[in-house]
Amino acid sequence: MIEIAKEYRVALPAWIEDELAAVPGVIADREERMHLVHRLADRNWREGNGGPFAALVAERDTGRIVSVGVNVVLASGVSSAHAEVVALGLAQTALGGWDLGAAGLPAHEIVVNWRPCIQCYGATMWSGVRRLVVAGEGPELEEITTFDEGPLGDDWAGQFEARGIDVVHDVLRDEALEVFRSYRKAVDDGGHVVYNARGGTQ
Amino acid sequence: MIEIAKEYRVALPAWIEDELAAVPGVIADREERMHLVHRLADRNWREGNGGPFAALVAERDTGRIVSVGVNVVLASGVSSAHAEVVALGLAQTALGGWDLGAAGLPAHEIVVNWRPCIQCYGATMWSGVRRLVVAGEGPELEEITTFDEGPLGDDWAGQFEARGIDVVHDVLRDEALEVFRSYRKAVDDGGHVVYNARGGTQ
Repeated sequence: MIEIAKEYRVALPAWIEDELAAVPGVIADREERMHLVHRLADRNWREGNGGPFAALVAERDTGRIVSVGVNVVLASGVSSAHAEVVALGLAQTALGGWDLGAAGLPAHEIVVNWRPCIQCYGATMWSGVRRLVVAGEGPELEEITTFDEGPLGDDWAGQFEARGIDVVHDVLRDEALEVFRSYRKAVDDGGHVVYNARGGTQ
Repeated sequence: MIEIAKEYRVALPAWIEDELAAVPGVIADREERMHLVHRLADRNWREGNGGPFAALVAERDTGRIVSVGVNVVLASGVSSAHAEVVALGLAQTALGGWDLGAAGLPAHEIVVNWRPCIQCYGATMWSGVRRLVVAGEGPELEEITTFDEGPLGDDWAGQFEARGIDVVHDVLRDEALEVFRSYRKAVDDGGHVVYNARGGTQ
């Protein structure tokens, strides 16, 4: 019989405890939710866990925080462990099921510091969330960070809407770009790695 | 401080042990690798773990089996746990790093029983594999199973090629359709659930 791994785990970094110590269970203001995402994204790359990306899942109508996620590709050794996949997986683990839109649950939203890459576009689509909130979209992310985000269609938001997921754009967009620029400067200065699709780090 | 889940786990089902008991460590023939994938996909839905989908990661040039994956969305409660994501996560766990294309490793391929959905399209793109082998593509999967696969572009394979990942099409295509048809018949007869993007099971 072949010997193979039977399980993989994806975990938040230990420093998340510090960051959440003063965070209330409910953040009613949308900009405040995004502000938390930006803070986690900025710390994440500085700690070396992965790229400058974070997300959270909240109850859409109350702002109750259900989960947070950061990109832990480097820390976990699992390439799918982008911020959205982590936040969604943790929210589903907390709520006990794969469908965040299941009957009997309040509606959920995911809050992310940029338009998702093509993997997380699909991950969001299949998660049961009813709303996606992004700090921004457009070429700046790829231009500044050099991350490849994949071939999303021009109608990416319309495809969400067609599946009952509404998209809220441009929430604290400038703050998102500040995080990306800080990250890029650190990469250019040396000591931080941009990992990417094929060919490993570059 | 808010109380949130800090980790999620994705595991293969216990029956995988039976299925792998007689599987050799190396399957040199490509059709034989796909045949294993079809067998796992067929058993997976019958066992109630998730949809009729399976995948494996192998060394491209030798056929050494590195991991297998099945869709465990229902079993794990994690919506991203599609066959490709599971196989890639387990391969990366086995090899100790997120990049299956890292320097010093042999080239890897992922073998799947249909063209990936849009989430797994991205997950494959970011995994470091150099080749994707699919049993088929086209509307039959969605028509037969009613699963939504998401808005992949017509140039989906070309986008892989542009990133150094070649695509091998139509390996045991008819066998793939047989699995999907068996699944659909069981759904129509009652007792098996098609879960889907928004709105939970349908």
